[in-house]
Amino acid sequence: MNITAVIMAGGRGERFWPKSRNASPKQFLSLTKDGETMIQKTVKRLMPIVKAEDVYIVTNAAYTELVREQLPDIPEENILAEPCARNTAPCIAFAAAVIGRKYEDAVMLVLPSDHLIGYEDIYINTLKKAVRAAENGKNLVTIGITPEYPETGYGYINFGAEKGDVYEVERFVEKPDLPTAKKYLASGKYLWNSGMFVWKVSSIMANLRELMPDIYEGALRIGEAFGTPGFTEVLAKEFSAFRSESVDFGIMEKADNIYTIPGSFGWDDVGSWLAVERINETDDDHNFINGDVVTVDTKRTTVCGGKRLVAAIGTRDLIIVDTDDVLLVCSKNNTQDVKKVIAQLKEQNRTELI
Amino acid sequence: MNITAVIMAGGRGERFWPKSRNASPKQFLSLTKDGETMIQKTVKRLMPIVKAEDVYIVTNAAYTELVREQLPDIPEENILAEPCARNTAPCIAFAAAVIGRKYEDAVMLVLPSDHLIGYEDIYINTLKKAVRAAENGKNLVTIGITPEYPETGYGYINFGAEKGDVYEVERFVEKPDLPTAKKYLASGKYLWNSGMFVWKVSSIMANLRELMPDIYEGALRIGEAFGTPGFTEVLAKEFSAFRSESVDFGIMEKADNIYTIPGSFGWDDVGSWLAVERINETDDDHNFINGDVVTVDTKRTTVCGGKRLVAAIGTRDLIIVDTDDVLLVCSKNNTQDVKKVIAQLKEQNRTELI
Repeated sequence: MNITAVIMAGGRGERFWPKSRNASPKQFLSLTKDGETMIQKTVKRLMPIVKAEDVYIVTNAAYTELVREQLPDIPEENILAEPCARNTAPCIAFAAAVIGRKYEDAVMLVLPSDHLIGYEDIYINTLKKAVRAAENGKNLVTIGITPEYPETGYGYINFGAEKGDVYEVERFVEKPDLPTAKKYLASGKYLWNSGMFVWKVSSIMANLRELMPDIYEGALRIGEAFGTPGFTEVLAKEFSAFRSESVDFGIMEKADNIYTIPGSFGWDDVGSWLAVERINETDDDHNFINGDVVTVDTKRTTVCGGKRLVAAIGTRDLIIVDTDDVLLVCSKNNTQDVKKVIAQLKEQNRTELI
Repeated sequence: MNITAVIMAGGRGERFWPKSRNASPKQFLSLTKDGETMIQKTVKRLMPIVKAEDVYIVTNAAYTELVREQLPDIPEENILAEPCARNTAPCIAFAAAVIGRKYEDAVMLVLPSDHLIGYEDIYINTLKKAVRAAENGKNLVTIGITPEYPETGYGYINFGAEKGDVYEVERFVEKPDLPTAKKYLASGKYLWNSGMFVWKVSSIMANLRELMPDIYEGALRIGEAFGTPGFTEVLAKEFSAFRSESVDFGIMEKADNIYTIPGSFGWDDVGSWLAVERINETDDDHNFINGDVVTVDTKRTTVCGGKRLVAAIGTRDLIIVDTDDVLLVCSKNNTQDVKKVIAQLKEQNRTELI
């Protein structure tokens, strides 16, 4: 069976402001010294098991040009432009319907566009196992990440009995508080929900038909119009009529016969500026320094320089990001507060800066 | 007797890099929100006792244009351009010789160009007392500052018996270590050496003749040439031949009949970026914020913004200075290390940045 990949690339990525902006969200940025963007890495690491012609990028209409520029090997018709943001369930239904027009059936790898993978061989082997399970009648398969610490920012997957390479999913749970996260970790029965899914087009469509029939019907109409002159109009009408819903809530938490494969391949969701020091090499003082930077007595500092010289003196646990029109200086304890700055700028109508 | 002022404005002010540069040192910067530069404030506060035509600015030849721009009321011929830096003794001798050509005798106030005064009325009253003492036969008078804490970065003046408004100086001492500074403070007999002097032209010339005869002779030749077509040539020859020497070491530590007046007028030498929060109003979280700045959970932070937005999030005890080509992020514990950055840039021949 053909293996296709659906890369979800509609996200906004506010947490990497001021590098990420409305016009260029995180998945289109390079946060590593090699200069490759997150989405380029995402597609490249799939090449051992997916052909470029079978890679689909679902993104906001505003970003199709960025996708074309950064991924010139992806066929134009595989860039699926959402006219508006409707979370992951409509996104996946749209892609499944389009793929359903090309192949009678196919395996779909559904993957975020803005995560990093440290061990790509292990990652590919994990995906292969998931593909085999999906091909062999397992309804829906999700990749769970073996937790390293009691993270409270992710949802968890509670798994049960082993069935060959996969485990039965008992339930999906929302982001826990710290005591609960610690309990999950201690139990040995919970994985992080990474948002990576593997299933057959026929399986996800059957589940959509049962659990989200409105979206299923709309997606079918979009799929029928795909490749015809009326497509843009049909897409605009049907997609904007979708309610905004995650596939986790709409499908995974309700469907039966759900499986997970524990993955342990150096996954990183690159969720805030703190990730930069994790995903890059740091110096002896635990600094990550990129750009034209002079340091004196600087420790545990991340500097993403821009066009100007940055002098960091005596700094500790600090993130410095220089861009042409905005400079960010942020304590590592406050990386989530970047959103508050964006909120202030929105209130002030300074849209050119966000 | 006429009162003249000699403003020493040749300094480099590395400690305010990157705002201060070779091309625009500290005395020509505004570090307060009112936009006035240090040298403009210095001249303005003298206006109650000195006429603009009697204010002399001794500066490096590179800065005469800046002086003209910032002090348009000072006569062109009162801008004394040193062809090279030779510390304060040659600077003062040059000015004394020039003033000696205009007035048979006059009182000279010798003042740094880059300090701030909080209580200008008290300052003027203190200077008036010094002027009276100098006119009434006191050889050399210096303004001492009543210390507020055991500062190790200043020289001290040990004073003795009271003589009317002034006190006899026992000796000048170099910058002490901390235990010594504490002893000085506890003794009640030491003042900070502020580098402000008051004397008659005839007095300082007599002392120069006795204690620094080479500089005295050279200064006389410069004074004789002043206003003649050959002046520039004479100045270049004589001034560059001077040895570099401070008036403290060359005169004050050796002369007899030296007096001091304790001053308590909110003096601040504005010696590093730390001064900015002292000399400006701060907000309830002890931040000084100037420019286009957004803050979230920011405390004890100084931000001198430039043309771009600065976002400071969760910062503590930090100094952020944004300029067109350099950004400084410096812990308040490390303000002296700005010089190390400049040293690194010098080594790299990046003279455009220093």
